[in-house]
Amino acid sequence: MKRISFLLNWYLNPYHIPILIAKELNFYKEHDIELSLLEPTNPSDVTKIIGDGEINFGLKAMIHCYAARSRKYQIKSIGTLLDEPPTGFISLKSKNIKQLSDLQGKNIGYVGEFGKVMVDHLAAEAGINSSSYTTVRVGMNASSAIVSGKVDAAIGLSCFQQLEIENMGYSCNLLRIDELANLGCCCFCSILFIVHEKVIKASPEIIINFIKATYMGMQFTREYPKEAYDYFAEINHGMDKSINQKIFHHCLPFFSKDLLNNKKDWDKVGAYAKKLKLIDSNYDATECYTNQFASNAKQDKLCKL
Amino acid sequence: MKRISFLLNWYLNPYHIPILIAKELNFYKEHDIELSLLEPTNPSDVTKIIGDGEINFGLKAMIHCYAARSRKYQIKSIGTLLDEPPTGFISLKSKNIKQLSDLQGKNIGYVGEFGKVMVDHLAAEAGINSSSYTTVRVGMNASSAIVSGKVDAAIGLSCFQQLEIENMGYSCNLLRIDELANLGCCCFCSILFIVHEKVIKASPEIIINFIKATYMGMQFTREYPKEAYDYFAEINHGMDKSINQKIFHHCLPFFSKDLLNNKKDWDKVGAYAKKLKLIDSNYDATECYTNQFASNAKQDKLCKL
Repeated sequence: MKRISFLLNWYLNPYHIPILIAKELNFYKEHDIELSLLEPTNPSDVTKIIGDGEINFGLKAMIHCYAARSRKYQIKSIGTLLDEPPTGFISLKSKNIKQLSDLQGKNIGYVGEFGKVMVDHLAAEAGINSSSYTTVRVGMNASSAIVSGKVDAAIGLSCFQQLEIENMGYSCNLLRIDELANLGCCCFCSILFIVHEKVIKASPEIIINFIKATYMGMQFTREYPKEAYDYFAEINHGMDKSINQKIFHHCLPFFSKDLLNNKKDWDKVGAYAKKLKLIDSNYDATECYTNQFASNAKQDKLCKL
Repeated sequence: MKRISFLLNWYLNPYHIPILIAKELNFYKEHDIELSLLEPTNPSDVTKIIGDGEINFGLKAMIHCYAARSRKYQIKSIGTLLDEPPTGFISLKSKNIKQLSDLQGKNIGYVGEFGKVMVDHLAAEAGINSSSYTTVRVGMNASSAIVSGKVDAAIGLSCFQQLEIENMGYSCNLLRIDELANLGCCCFCSILFIVHEKVIKASPEIIINFIKATYMGMQFTREYPKEAYDYFAEINHGMDKSINQKIFHHCLPFFSKDLLNNKKDWDKVGAYAKKLKLIDSNYDATECYTNQFASNAKQDKLCKL
């Protein structure tokens, strides 16, 4: 049995259920893997910790994978967990923020470093002076920052933070970043399985097994969502988690059914990352991801499910 | 700046505030440390991950340090965070569990492997047949397992899980393990700062700095508890956290004021670990901890606070 520490991109939440299922139903164990799931307290730590080779496996959004590569962190995506979850500026309806220009004079929350880059770029493209708004780093606290009034709007997912806020009785507006930036998809925010490249070189068989087991967890989650959620509810500490069921139902459509990296998305986000000056204009995206593992995930033990 | 990943023993909670304060008030930064705080999803992973040398710094209870050493994990305590927090079998008052023998016929929750060893040992000492009760591994979910009726009682802290349950409107009984086992203290459950020994050899200066900064965080927390709690509330995601303030107030008396390892406690818990057969009868406890770092923590920059 090989123990793997796996660093989540966020505190444990319903979109991690496919991984949790693969762990709880012993799919990892059957593939000779003991999986230790860790949560960050600051999502911006993830690419550093995996890039430093301290922990070998984790999750991170596509745009951050580009940013990390440009900083010479040797991380690579081996597959997709969450495909293009709708992402944008969430605000209380009472704030009346309906277009980018409405953000002038406002406090705008973002998760970490590159969220700020995106805000500033969107504003600049729209001719909004950066002195006319204030950016506030909110980490994993977008929802509470919005509700408490600490920020007027914050970047978040419609299938997560927006639901949390609505669940507290507020109506929300969402300005989708893919629309504001003419991206055509929210793939910059797709959540990917990443590894340090040294693992690909030294132990590809572990990645093959990891992906196969994860694929089984994904398939179970998509085919038996009620049972999958019940495992999550059982494991996740804390009592007041009714909101999690809503989040899970809204995340279901965005789970990647084959775990594959999508070349088209990588190309789009690569172009966007170049615009944001996160990577050089001649940067080759193909070093950021590989499908050598996910393309074979399907073959294993489907009959078990 | 040296980046350190630090693996908490539990999800981020109020007894971690001294560390959080040292991070938020830049005490670590001033000591040339960038601290990445990670949470486990399974507390039993912590000694493995640090013992494997994957992550170098973390927190764990004293009894687990002994257990880890006996498994050849090269971890060592460099100081104390939480000193003897009262620990025992928590149950709803309606269950009428007032003495050990009342646990017969009951489902008893424990966190991880060594909790079960303690339960079985206590029962055996009291002449209770192990077939007359059922042990249930509940991880970090003792409170919800007790309230939902999944277990009749579970091991937890009076300054944490018992408060959570009472906060939901239930009355509790607590059977203290130190009293049941005639230990004289709950030091087996003291929460310690642990490192992999390779760090002590390779980079003692980093540990010196880590402990100095942590000491400043501890001092701030004990002297300015309101301000310290406000930082925590700000950072900790989630909305419904009023219970955390109660937990914090009840944890305050148990924070170690000097971070020192207590030899007397190590000796007591060593004797207990021998009884539990976690370590050999001739085992030398002194390899489990050192005060070479904490004994100098006080000298630095006190005037700043």
